[in-house]
Amino acid sequence: MAVSFTSPIKPIIFFSPNNNQNPNFLSSSFRCSFSLKTHLPVEPEPVFSSVKSFAPATVANLGPGFDILGVAVDGIGDFVSLSLDPSVHPGELSIASISPASKLSKNPLFNCAGIAALAVMKMLGIRSVGLSLSLEKGLPLGSGLGSSAASAAAAAVAVNELFGGKLSQKDLVLAGLESESKVSGYHADNIAPAIMGGFVLIRSYDPLSLKRLAFPENKELVFVLVSPEFEAPTKKMRAALPAEITMAHHVWNSSQAAALVAAVLEGEVEGLGRALSSDRIVEPKRAPLIPGMEGVKKVAIEAGAFGCTISGAGPTAVAVTDGEERGREIGERMVEAFWKEGGLRAVAMVQRLDRVGARLVGSIPR
Amino acid sequence: MAVSFTSPIKPIIFFSPNNNQNPNFLSSSFRCSFSLKTHLPVEPEPVFSSVKSFAPATVANLGPGFDILGVAVDGIGDFVSLSLDPSVHPGELSIASISPASKLSKNPLFNCAGIAALAVMKMLGIRSVGLSLSLEKGLPLGSGLGSSAASAAAAAVAVNELFGGKLSQKDLVLAGLESESKVSGYHADNIAPAIMGGFVLIRSYDPLSLKRLAFPENKELVFVLVSPEFEAPTKKMRAALPAEITMAHHVWNSSQAAALVAAVLEGEVEGLGRALSSDRIVEPKRAPLIPGMEGVKKVAIEAGAFGCTISGAGPTAVAVTDGEERGREIGERMVEAFWKEGGLRAVAMVQRLDRVGARLVGSIPR
Repeated sequence: MAVSFTSPIKPIIFFSPNNNQNPNFLSSSFRCSFSLKTHLPVEPEPVFSSVKSFAPATVANLGPGFDILGVAVDGIGDFVSLSLDPSVHPGELSIASISPASKLSKNPLFNCAGIAALAVMKMLGIRSVGLSLSLEKGLPLGSGLGSSAASAAAAAVAVNELFGGKLSQKDLVLAGLESESKVSGYHADNIAPAIMGGFVLIRSYDPLSLKRLAFPENKELVFVLVSPEFEAPTKKMRAALPAEITMAHHVWNSSQAAALVAAVLEGEVEGLGRALSSDRIVEPKRAPLIPGMEGVKKVAIEAGAFGCTISGAGPTAVAVTDGEERGREIGERMVEAFWKEGGLRAVAMVQRLDRVGARLVGSIPR
Repeated sequence: MAVSFTSPIKPIIFFSPNNNQNPNFLSSSFRCSFSLKTHLPVEPEPVFSSVKSFAPATVANLGPGFDILGVAVDGIGDFVSLSLDPSVHPGELSIASISPASKLSKNPLFNCAGIAALAVMKMLGIRSVGLSLSLEKGLPLGSGLGSSAASAAAAAVAVNELFGGKLSQKDLVLAGLESESKVSGYHADNIAPAIMGGFVLIRSYDPLSLKRLAFPENKELVFVLVSPEFEAPTKKMRAALPAEITMAHHVWNSSQAAALVAAVLEGEVEGLGRALSSDRIVEPKRAPLIPGMEGVKKVAIEAGAFGCTISGAGPTAVAVTDGEERGREIGERMVEAFWKEGGLRAVAMVQRLDRVGARLVGSIPR
């Protein structure tokens, strides 16, 4: 089967008749045909016979940064192992395994990692070798921690690095966006920080313009991530977003988003937390849909967090502070509050800012 | 007459019966009575017999920074001369002169400089000496360059410095806000940069929270200010503001405001200009009310400006670039465009970022 693309952003997928014309096919291996433009004039040689990559969890929205800000969180994420595989047809990709066992499709066209890997293969113009991919999910699905973006980011980086790292981070974000657009909507606030690390501001989509916001090296930033056992009602979460916003709320939230960016660049954790906590548009609509969230936020601040909000579309709550010990105390209080206020069991993680983004963690030379 | 205040932010003014119960009185000298709380436990001694202060022009809004961002511009502004005056009743303020002659009131309670000066006298608890103030307007009224804020800022700083500079910049902004609230609405995006210099982000009003955004010392930033001979229709300008905003526009403008702040802190003039130019909420509504503005913006960009928008509520157009020579070329083109596209005569000024804000420019010790 052939997959061709009219642009690097919005692919139109054609299924070649020699494989399957029905998108609901069973094969888990797909060819990238590059009849349309690719990024490289010459197909690159593989540099490794196999690589293993990691991509971190991400917190999107960050309160007033709805749809425009995201940050990578170290210590949790997804792994992708990628190998040259002579048993896979040249130019094709096969998903060998997904662990732990999940409802995720092993069909690369319906799998976050698969879609991103294929997009990168297309950009590189890979025709001469077949690839086999294994995905290890470290992130739960639907938790608001950028699970799909982590898979896509790890896969995109793995393919790129296997062939010598020819593509830029922006290209990899574009590849990841193809994946995100099919899974959770065309938004870059998870995939961009998953690939680039740190804080990323999405300036525009057409053309894609991203701004990495460097948090000072000598400052400490700790995220407390508390995930309740609760499936956030995605439809309700989206429906809760107001279509129209008052000028007063717009001015307020813009100011807080601007303050958040300034606090990140200056490493001012207290100001960062205050801004994170100050969304008057999205959080007030979504928090009531997550049992206990409002109480959890209150308790987090009482316990010394500089700020707290919903991670992505939830249900995970994210609080920020500047030390791990304090972070653990805050996490315990938040877990208690989810139980007391929302009747939900929850787990807390205390993690640092990830400054690197998706990267190789292992490789075997050819 | 006595002026007392219930809070440093929103004064309630009482007119004492021994002077005049009618606010439309003629006297130009007013007493500050401090029956309510003042900032200082002991009335400070004057340090100088007279001082002269300067406060710069300011550009508010900056495109997507509507109501939350402002910047001070060097080289143009208002001057205030302030003297101890034994002929003025202790604790009172008299406005001796305003030049050039204008429609501005010499009644301190109806004059920007007077209101701010009285507010600072109140904060300091001045009861023992009388003051005489002269105002030299360097800024035209109603041009969108923060004329009222410059007068208020210069007056506030003059009073504070005459008594040894006991108050903080934030106190002086609060004093200036009393003035702005009576003249042009309770907004700090002119008065804060006029007092503090540089770029200032307004985080909140209750409590007042301001963030000074430091533009790197080693980078150059030049403003091209082109003021047409046109009285911006204030009512129409206000009515043009939409009451409700779509989520898409809110997200876009927030992102641009955040990008603007990042560009300021990093001294990235090109990004700063791009963000300044990208307002999709206010400028598209207001620009059509200023004849030629849309053409002027287009021409500024063609001539090499990194960005262009309306200064404050207009009618001045502001463009940014990184060199004075280029700034002059851009200014000439913009003046031409105001004439060709709007039939308006205009004058251009090329000015640098003011990093200092309101300050003393002269003093005579006691």
